[in-house]
Amino acid sequence: MKTSVLESLVIPNTTRIVLLVLDGLGDLPDPARGMRTPLEAARTPNLDALAPSAALGRLLPVQPGVTPGSGPGHLALFGFDPVETVVGRGVLEALGAGMELKPGDVAARANFCSIDAGGIVTDRRAGRIPSEKCAELVAKLAAGAGRFEDVDIVLKPGKGHRFVAVLRGPGLGGDVGDADPHKEGKPIPPAHALVPGAANEKTARIVNAFVKRAAEVLKGESPANGALARGFSARPHFPGYRERFQLRAAAIAAYPMYRGVAQLAGMDLFVPAGEGAAEAIETAKQQWADHDFFFLHVKGTDMAGEDGNFDAKAAVIEAVDAALPKLLALAPDVLCVTGDHSTPASVKGHSWHPVPALIHGKWCFADGFSRFHEKNCRGGSFANLASKDLLAVLLANAARLDKYGA
Amino acid sequence: MKTSVLESLVIPNTTRIVLLVLDGLGDLPDPARGMRTPLEAARTPNLDALAPSAALGRLLPVQPGVTPGSGPGHLALFGFDPVETVVGRGVLEALGAGMELKPGDVAARANFCSIDAGGIVTDRRAGRIPSEKCAELVAKLAAGAGRFEDVDIVLKPGKGHRFVAVLRGPGLGGDVGDADPHKEGKPIPPAHALVPGAANEKTARIVNAFVKRAAEVLKGESPANGALARGFSARPHFPGYRERFQLRAAAIAAYPMYRGVAQLAGMDLFVPAGEGAAEAIETAKQQWADHDFFFLHVKGTDMAGEDGNFDAKAAVIEAVDAALPKLLALAPDVLCVTGDHSTPASVKGHSWHPVPALIHGKWCFADGFSRFHEKNCRGGSFANLASKDLLAVLLANAARLDKYGA
Repeated sequence: MKTSVLESLVIPNTTRIVLLVLDGLGDLPDPARGMRTPLEAARTPNLDALAPSAALGRLLPVQPGVTPGSGPGHLALFGFDPVETVVGRGVLEALGAGMELKPGDVAARANFCSIDAGGIVTDRRAGRIPSEKCAELVAKLAAGAGRFEDVDIVLKPGKGHRFVAVLRGPGLGGDVGDADPHKEGKPIPPAHALVPGAANEKTARIVNAFVKRAAEVLKGESPANGALARGFSARPHFPGYRERFQLRAAAIAAYPMYRGVAQLAGMDLFVPAGEGAAEAIETAKQQWADHDFFFLHVKGTDMAGEDGNFDAKAAVIEAVDAALPKLLALAPDVLCVTGDHSTPASVKGHSWHPVPALIHGKWCFADGFSRFHEKNCRGGSFANLASKDLLAVLLANAARLDKYGA
Repeated sequence: MKTSVLESLVIPNTTRIVLLVLDGLGDLPDPARGMRTPLEAARTPNLDALAPSAALGRLLPVQPGVTPGSGPGHLALFGFDPVETVVGRGVLEALGAGMELKPGDVAARANFCSIDAGGIVTDRRAGRIPSEKCAELVAKLAAGAGRFEDVDIVLKPGKGHRFVAVLRGPGLGGDVGDADPHKEGKPIPPAHALVPGAANEKTARIVNAFVKRAAEVLKGESPANGALARGFSARPHFPGYRERFQLRAAAIAAYPMYRGVAQLAGMDLFVPAGEGAAEAIETAKQQWADHDFFFLHVKGTDMAGEDGNFDAKAAVIEAVDAALPKLLALAPDVLCVTGDHSTPASVKGHSWHPVPALIHGKWCFADGFSRFHEKNCRGGSFANLASKDLLAVLLANAARLDKYGA
C-alpha cells in the first residue's frame, strides 16, 4: 500500500478520538411507523443534546449500490480502501471464530462431508451434523492430523458441519485453490497453487496431506467421514494505526470478528464485560490513559436488523443513548457515532444504503439539526463521504493533521 | 474494460427495472415563471403521487462542469465510464443516421465540398447544398464509388452537405486521420494510419481511393464536386448487459441515435409507434415478458430545451406524466425517471448541470418529498451520484447484487 497524502500529514497530538460503531445502524423509513426509521423512532435524549452542535452526514462504505460485508465495512471505517484492501474469506472466518492469526498464517474455511467408497463426495455438508459432533470430530482431527512437515494445523470447530483450519509454519503461501468440489457427485480436487511458487505449492501439499489423513482419521465415522477446505488466504500485513496515524488505538468489541479486523489494522484488543455500549464504555474508561483512539463496537443494532425487528433495533439505540453520558464524561476531543453499513429491518440483511454518521468536536461545523437520524444526515455537512475518508476527517477534527502544501 | 467489483457481485433475479430517460430533463429556475423549472411548473399528478415514497437525487453525467453529448450521457446511464468508454464520432454519426453497424465496420462523418482545378478546397460545405441534392449525389457515389478491393462503402445522406460513410470489409482499422483539410485554401490531405499496422493502413488506402474516385464521379457537379471524410472510428465492442449484468435489456427509442448507443451496450432494440412516452410504454408492455431491463427514451424534452421553449418542455413532461399510470400498471420492481443531461431552455443547448432523478422501489429510501423537481433533488438520498453509478443503485434496488466481502 502506497503512502498516501493523508499519512504524510499526520502530526502528533494528545487529543482523543472515539469511533462508536453501531453495527448495521442505517435503516429505511417504515410505513407502519409513520415513515420513521429506528434511529428516528428511538428516544435518544443524549444524542439529541449533541446533535445541534454536531456535524451530520452519511457514509458510503464501498461504492454506490454495493452492500458490504462486515470485513470491508470495518476496514473502510479504519481508513483502508475496502476494494484495494482484500482480506480473504479464510482469514475473516478465522478472525470471526476468535482465532489469533500470526504473520505467515494461512487460514481456510473447512467443513465435514460425506464421501463414498470410491472417494466421491455424496454430501458436502455431511448431513449438517450437530455442533457437538463437529467439536468431537475436530478434536479427533487435531490429534490425528495436526501436523505435516514443519506445519501445525490449528483447528477450531464452528456451527454444524463447519470448522476453521489455520496452517502455521514457515514459508506458506495463501494463493491456493479450494480442496472442495463445490458440488456433490465429484471427488475432492487436490488443492493447487493459483500462483506458481514454492510458498503456495507448500501450502497445497500440506492441505492435500491433511485432506488425505482426515479421511483416514474419520474412516469409521458416518455421515462425516471427510473434510473439505476452501477460501485459503494468508493473514495480510497492513501498516498499523501507530505507523500510519501515530495513534495508540484500542478496539473494544464483544464479538471476535470485529476484534479480528481491528487487529489487522494494528489496534490493541479488549473484550468488554458484556455486549452493550455501557460495558464497552467502561472498558474505554479503563484504557483512557493508554490510548488515544477508541473503536467501540455494538453488535445489537445489526442483529435486530437481520431479525427484521424494528423495535429491538430502536431499543438497542436507546440503550446506547442511555450509556452515552459516561462516554461524554471522559471528554473525548472527537466523537463519531456511525455504523459499518446499513441493516434495514425491512431488508433483514446488510444493504447498500449510506450510513448515518455524527461527528462531534470543537471544530466539527455545528449543522444545527435537532436530532441525529438518516433524514437529517442527507442534508448534513458531509452528506456523501466515503467511509474510507472518515478517519481523515476525525484526525482533522482532533488537530492531528498538518497543512498540505505551503 | 476490466471486470469491476460491481460485475463480480451480479446475481440473477426475476425483478424488472425501468429506466425512463427524458432527454435533457434538467433545467434552471426561470425568473419569468416565478423561478420555477419546467419540471416544477409542469402539472405532474402521477409523479407527485410517486414522489413521497421515492428516493430523489441528481446525476452527474461526466464530471463537474462538463456538458455531455448524447453518446457519453447515455453510455454513463448504461453503466459505462463515459471517459474511459470512447465511441468515435463516425460511429455516433452512423448510429444517429440509423445505420446498423456490424463488428469490424469503420464509420466516418463525410460531406460534400467544392474543389478547384488545382485540387484546392474552396468551400468545405459546398455552398450548403440542399438535402435533396445531397441524397442525389450520395446515390451517384454509391453507384460509382461503392467498392474498393474487398471493402464495401455504405453511404447514407444527411442534412445539407453531410453524409455518413461506413467501410465494411475484412481487416479494417479505425485509427485513421481525417481526409479533410479542416479549412479552405488547402488540398485534401490523404488519410493515414494514426497507429501503424496493416488494418489502419488498409482503411487509409480505401479512404484515399474513395476520395479520389468521388472527385471523378462528381466531376461535372457544381458546387459539390468533392468529398471529405473525418472522425474515422471502428464499431467498439463492449461487454453487453447480458454478460455484465445478467439482464435481458430492451431499448425503446424513436430516434436511431439512442437505439444505436443502446445497441453498443448490448440491448435489444425496439421502435415505438410514436415519439411520446405513451407509445414507448406500449412497446414496453409488449416486451414485458421477454426482458427485465427497459430503457425508454423520450426526445421531446431535449428538443424543447434546444428550442428555448420552456412551455413546450413542460408540456412534454406533462404528457409523460399522463402516460405514467400505464407503466406503473406493469408493476416494475424498480422505476427510475431521469435524463441523460440537462438542456435548460435558457441555455438552448446541453449543459453541465446535474440531472434530476427519481428512483422508486421497495427499498429505495422514501425521501418524503411532495414533488419531483431539481430543487428537491438537491436534498435527496443520492444528491450527487455519478451517472455511471446509477445502474449499480438500480441493480441493488432490484435485489440483483450480492454482498461484497464477508
